[in-house]
Amino acid sequence: MKVKVVVTLKNGVLDPQGKAIQQTLNGMSFSDVKEVRQGKYFDIEVNIEDEKKAKAEVEEMCKKLLANLVIEDYKIL
Amino acid sequence: MKVKVVVTLKNGVLDPQGKAIQQTLNGMSFSDVKEVRQGKYFDIEVNIEDEKKAKAEVEEMCKKLLANLVIEDYKIL
Repeated sequence: MKVKVVVTLKNGVLDPQGKAIQQTLNGMSFSDVKEVRQGKYFDIEVNIEDEKKAKAEVEEMCKKLLANLVIEDYKIL
Repeated sequence: MKVKVVVTLKNGVLDPQGKAIQQTLNGMSFSDVKEVRQGKYFDIEVNIEDEKKAKAEVEEMCKKLLANLVIEDYKIL
């Protein structure tokens, strides 16, 4: 099955890339944009059909490789 | 309100970064990983409270800046 994961910066961690996107959007007449935070998205296909087991395995991957838990949070969708 | 967007490579577009992650995971004893595709995630805060209007505005942003529609798809969550 496929498991989707989003890795985002923790609140309070500066996100210069998101800030640059926000400023660009503001300059493109999207003046309603207040804040942009950028994160990473992973679409992981595993050979495990049991949803619970697959998500547990992906959670392990997040802890060990995909997310830097000092500055990032992960969410399995 | 906050609008979340995911931008992913279209099917068939090579994703060397995802491939590298997959191989690394396989080498870390996550042998069940069959494929990894990486994408981008955006958390956009707009000064629009109406959900429909906010999402329409964000869709415009995707088309004009956030996604390269030649090789990428976007999904507003």
